[in-house]
Amino acid sequence: MQLARVTGTVTATAKDPRLAGQKLLMVDFLDAGGAVQGGAQVAVDTVGAGLGDTVVVAMGSAARMGAGLTTLPVDAAIMAIVDQVSTA
Amino acid sequence: MQLARVTGTVTATAKDPRLAGQKLLMVDFLDAGGAVQGGAQVAVDTVGAGLGDTVVVAMGSAARMGAGLTTLPVDAAIMAIVDQVSTA
Amino acid sequence: MQLARVTGTVTATAKDPRLAGQKLLMVDFLDAGGAVQGGAQVAVDTVGAGLGDTVVVAMGSAARMGAGLTTLPVDAAIMAIVDQVSTA
Amino acid sequence: MQLARVTGTVTATAKDPRLAGQKLLMVDFLDAGGAVQGGAQVAVDTVGAGLGDTVVVAMGSAARMGAGLTTLPVDAAIMAIVDQVSTA
Amino acid sequence: MQLARVTGTVTATAKDPRLAGQKLLMVDFLDAGGAVQGGAQVAVDTVGAGLGDTVVVAMGSAARMGAGLTTLPVDAAIMAIVDQVSTA
Repeated sequence: MQLARVTGTVTATAKDPRLAGQKLLMVDFLDAGGAVQGGAQVAVDTVGAGLGDTVVVAMGSAARMGAGLTTLPVDAAIMAIVDQVSTA
Repeated sequence: MQLARVTGTVTATAKDPRLAGQKLLMVDFLDAGGAVQGGAQVAVDTVGAGLGDTVVVAMGSAARMGAGLTTLPVDAAIMAIVDQVSTA
Repeated sequence: MQLARVTGTVTATAKDPRLAGQKLLMVDFLDAGGAVQGGAQVAVDTVGAGLGDTVVVAMGSAARMGAGLTTLPVDAAIMAIVDQVSTA
Repeated sequence: MQLARVTGTVTATAKDPRLAGQKLLMVDFLDAGGAVQGGAQVAVDTVGAGLGDTVVVAMGSAARMGAGLTTLPVDAAIMAIVDQVSTA
Repeated sequence: MQLARVTGTVTATAKDPRLAGQKLLMVDFLDAGGAVQGGAQVAVDTVGAGLGDTVVVAMGSAARMGAGLTTLPVDAAIMAIVDQVSTA
């Protein structure tokens, strides 16, 4: 999974109907030290994440293992809000 | 999913017959600020997107979760047209 | 999917038996303007593509949605020969 | 799979309930000589790996082939602790 | 699939039991001209490849289409030993 920071919110009126009611967040991927390492993504939120939160994002088919996401056309979902990354 | 901008249209006569009638669009991946971050792709359109639109693209097996795409040989599909990316 | 150009042919005697009779082509990924953007791949051909052709390549599990490829150990397959990429 | 080094531990209280009790480790991808080649990831541990260990990480759906991981929303799992990489 | 060169062998005592008896090789990805283009990976061997061989590597779920690999936690498998890459 990717360590990431929530950087924005995406609003879309014209969309696949199964995305209705889903919160779509922009995230940037981070390294262990918290530095951005590219890879901006649009991720569905499953845990109540907000702007500035550090999160764990499941990518690919793993995203659809999220609660209620099985049949959604999504490939990125926030699965955790990070309290701490300990590197020693 | 990827935030992306539609940059072109792909025409192909010789193709897998299941791609017949599908609109194939070129997209560039964007970061939250709208800057291109590489990753040109050919994506199937499912929401009526056009040149210059900012869109959300589902990649990999998620693309085939799009309406009518289950058995198509596609790994990228436009799932939403973006109204706004709010970063604060 | 990836816009790509066919750059070579791969010959292999020792291989998974299910690859027997499959044409394996080298491709380079392109951006909408036709510039190489890295990502050399070995792709199975399903549409009669040849050296120098601009093609559309399905990646990952999408490759195995190609006709006759369901059980093959492949993650890249040429699904279309491009006539034109229109960017305006 | 990726050769990687364990660089940290991720703590998260708010998370998908199926991640409860799973050890989440930060890893950096390595080349054969042990140099970091980018790609920081959060991986579930299945083999008792610890900080500084060189490990093999299965990515994507392969991660969920790990013991007990079939229905977890994970796309990266440590499958081996490396004793030695022999390059000659 | 990736054109790649075998650069080393990985030894691991602590590992998922389904990896027992599998030969794990380090590979570097190559372009059509044989130049390394990054992407060191650990791949399972299915065709008797050895150090220095140029090979074709199936990535992702395609790796588990290899003979005997269906239930293994692997995302990269060597599917062919390359005799020649012809670019003209």
